[in-house]
Amino acid sequence: MRHDPLFEPVKNRTVPFKGSYLTLERLTIILPDRTEAIREIVRVRNAVAILPVEKDGTVHLVRQHRPAIEKTIVEIPAGIVEKNESLAACARRECEEETGYRPRTLKKLITYAHAEGYSTGYITLFAGTNLVKTGGTKLDRTEFVEQVSMPLEKLLRMVRQNKIIDSKTILCTMLYAT
Amino acid sequence: MRHDPLFEPVKNRTVPFKGSYLTLERLTIILPDRTEAIREIVRVRNAVAILPVEKDGTVHLVRQHRPAIEKTIVEIPAGIVEKNESLAACARRECEEETGYRPRTLKKLITYAHAEGYSTGYITLFAGTNLVKTGGTKLDRTEFVEQVSMPLEKLLRMVRQNKIIDSKTILCTMLYAT
Repeated sequence: MRHDPLFEPVKNRTVPFKGSYLTLERLTIILPDRTEAIREIVRVRNAVAILPVEKDGTVHLVRQHRPAIEKTIVEIPAGIVEKNESLAACARRECEEETGYRPRTLKKLITYAHAEGYSTGYITLFAGTNLVKTGGTKLDRTEFVEQVSMPLEKLLRMVRQNKIIDSKTILCTMLYAT
Repeated sequence: MRHDPLFEPVKNRTVPFKGSYLTLERLTIILPDRTEAIREIVRVRNAVAILPVEKDGTVHLVRQHRPAIEKTIVEIPAGIVEKNESLAACARRECEEETGYRPRTLKKLITYAHAEGYSTGYITLFAGTNLVKTGGTKLDRTEFVEQVSMPLEKLLRMVRQNKIIDSKTILCTMLYAT
């Protein structure tokens, strides 16, 4: 759209906090009525997530602790896209590092903004098939995950029962299975 | 689980930034191998989002600008839960304030963590039916939204084509329509 009356350009940007994982920015934006407003946002790197599915319908997941929500949850493998890494390469890498299975075939599902209200971050979702068991798990020093495998139907049931609570796993499961 | 070996307790918590919308916390956590690690998280208030659906399948949406992703997007009505407000009351209120339609019937779909990696925030999704047109739109001074209505099938098609990019709208549409 050439001139969108709802578009709110950024007039000024300060950085009150720059961490190793996320950067907090304070934006002054120009509203449609030409007045100004402040918006606090976090700048994070984009991520990928992948649902690895065997021919017989078994899916490989991970269980890990998430300090922000103070819960240990079951989710699909995922991770931050490295510099100069393609989304597909990142999906293959994270899948192998977290589950020990490397997908030969990838299908891109969608890219979505996970917290459009205050975060710059996008997650791209893939389904991975033609899995090769390499056993090549490789985790960061501070990363502890446990492998969990189950039938896709069970995962879909857990999604519908709200026993899965992260957006990437719910979305990926529904987009792949329905 | 009484003793989960993956659980990572918080040893220390500092607040490098406290904004009006979000608070940044720096956590020192104890890893399963008893070493320590730092995690940066943002504390935000929980939200609700609602898909209002007419008897004939028309859904009422809003278009608004999202400074964090620098895009104007079409999404379902949503908002922050006020203190002492129930999730259902918040869903009814936000739906009416943003679209001018008040749902007499609510169906809770799921509650999900939208950015489990670094945010405390949960969103609870509802479908709203038996809509009453009150015309009672009411927006904050700095909130500018445009009403958009379309058939549910079109919204579902836009989701599958990745023309809808926010997690709450994609999730709510898929959970309601599939």
